[in-house]
Amino acid sequence: MDDTTRLNDTIGPQDPQTIAERVGAGMFAEDAASQGLGMSVDAMAPGYARLSMSVRPDMLNGFKICHGGFITTLADSAFAFACNSANRLTVAAAIAVDFIAPAHEGDRLIAEAKELTQAGRSGIYDVKVVNQRGETIALLRGRSHRLKDQPVVPL
Amino acid sequence: MDDTTRLNDTIGPQDPQTIAERVGAGMFAEDAASQGLGMSVDAMAPGYARLSMSVRPDMLNGFKICHGGFITTLADSAFAFACNSANRLTVAAAIAVDFIAPAHEGDRLIAEAKELTQAGRSGIYDVKVVNQRGETIALLRGRSHRLKDQPVVPL
Amino acid sequence: MDDTTRLNDTIGPQDPQTIAERVGAGMFAEDAASQGLGMSVDAMAPGYARLSMSVRPDMLNGFKICHGGFITTLADSAFAFACNSANRLTVAAAIAVDFIAPAHEGDRLIAEAKELTQAGRSGIYDVKVVNQRGETIALLRGRSHRLKDQPVVPL
Amino acid sequence: MDDTTRLNDTIGPQDPQTIAERVGAGMFAEDAASQGLGMSVDAMAPGYARLSMSVRPDMLNGFKICHGGFITTLADSAFAFACNSANRLTVAAAIAVDFIAPAHEGDRLIAEAKELTQAGRSGIYDVKVVNQRGETIALLRGRSHRLKDQPVVPL
Repeated sequence: MDDTTRLNDTIGPQDPQTIAERVGAGMFAEDAASQGLGMSVDAMAPGYARLSMSVRPDMLNGFKICHGGFITTLADSAFAFACNSANRLTVAAAIAVDFIAPAHEGDRLIAEAKELTQAGRSGIYDVKVVNQRGETIALLRGRSHRLKDQPVVPL
Repeated sequence: MDDTTRLNDTIGPQDPQTIAERVGAGMFAEDAASQGLGMSVDAMAPGYARLSMSVRPDMLNGFKICHGGFITTLADSAFAFACNSANRLTVAAAIAVDFIAPAHEGDRLIAEAKELTQAGRSGIYDVKVVNQRGETIALLRGRSHRLKDQPVVPL
Repeated sequence: MDDTTRLNDTIGPQDPQTIAERVGAGMFAEDAASQGLGMSVDAMAPGYARLSMSVRPDMLNGFKICHGGFITTLADSAFAFACNSANRLTVAAAIAVDFIAPAHEGDRLIAEAKELTQAGRSGIYDVKVVNQRGETIALLRGRSHRLKDQPVVPL
Repeated sequence: MDDTTRLNDTIGPQDPQTIAERVGAGMFAEDAASQGLGMSVDAMAPGYARLSMSVRPDMLNGFKICHGGFITTLADSAFAFACNSANRLTVAAAIAVDFIAPAHEGDRLIAEAKELTQAGRSGIYDVKVVNQRGETIALLRGRSHRLKDQPVVPL
């Protein structure tokens, strides 16, 4: 790779970091679900995403702790943003979630998703959800399935 | 409920079916999350619950299909109602979800949860989520953990 | 097989039940692992397989109960036989196993695998492992991935 | 920590590293299953174990690749050694395995297990299985359940 290419890479849409950031912004702009739950996309990188969300009163179950479904939704969003970060349309095939500790009203939950493997059309991702004190709330492992070559957002 | 019913206390709160129904009504009344998503509890029985929910515009992700997190939240609620149906306080320890087909705005999703095993404090439950045409949307398998003897609702 | 059977070729290799049985026999004949563990293929049908295995001394772990890996191997074999029963080459992409009760030396374990869904190249299967008294030992849920059209055995 | 304490730590059964190593040796000596498959315990530490195994002809399935059950058995052994490394008797409650790439006869598989969380009696562990070229073969996530205080081995 020569210097010219490198220069282009740092600023061009071919640069994986730039692509990941544009995918993050473009996906979130269209994602009514993640927006409606008050999520924010805090970081994007190739194979990586970090999102956060505060636990609202309407996310509490009958035991007055955050419904596991909302913790999962945050983790699943982080998974989706990470596995689409190369701008190749990818969907979740399966997720497994271990609930470690309860989350309470007002807690700020941070979900960090990382690619573990990508082979053929299948990828494996890990997501860790922690609260504002860094305590682990949940662990998600997801299997992604990449669709036939389609971009997620126009670059 | 009239006096006759009250007199029949031997088939009253001790009756597993009656207990399950009271737990369902009592849990739902306190469950802001399930209420806020427009769920309804359509059937309760020992080790069993059936809930339903319509896919709203605010549940759609950037691909304009129902965010997997909301499908999971419905399934997880059904799991929670089923595993608490004996009125012994129980929480979800882990869930695994396979996403089979997408759900679209306006679809009516029905989640049916059934107990497979209960050994010691651990239970295994299966939840099947179908749409209004009976097509399978997702399959959840959940592991429950029963807390030290505490009722879910006063009977 | 006599001439009459051969003449009935319209219900011959095209018949899903016959295909499943031939796949079962053909796969097992080549499967050193399942043979070496003393498994037997007790029933085959479309999307279905039932295998059994006795717990031998060399399958016990340090706690003198059957190593979970061998229980899983039996369940995984049943899964493999079921998901290949249509004679289209299919591999396991993922399995999740819940261990319900221990198995002991001399126990006869029976694993019954059933197809839940098949969509595109992906299938979901459930396997239940019970002992000779019908007690549930483990539950496996598997995700299969069908390879490009290749037969498993010549028919 | 002063020098005296350090000296005691390096030799005393109270030292977590020493305990882990003794548990590893003691468990393996009693573990007919792991021995019979030719496993070796290559490293032990608190919340950590690394085991390896070569793929033998009798581990191949009908497709002439290592049966997923044997890959799982190696990973499950690593999980068991790691979750018992504090010498408190612990069993596997559930495992989920993603199969990433096939393993072939003669491959040397290395399984490295690490504790992610331990809360109450429940722990979550990750196991990564690689071959002799460092290629990822499988990923296991396990949930452990600690029994009432019992040692694994006498110290």
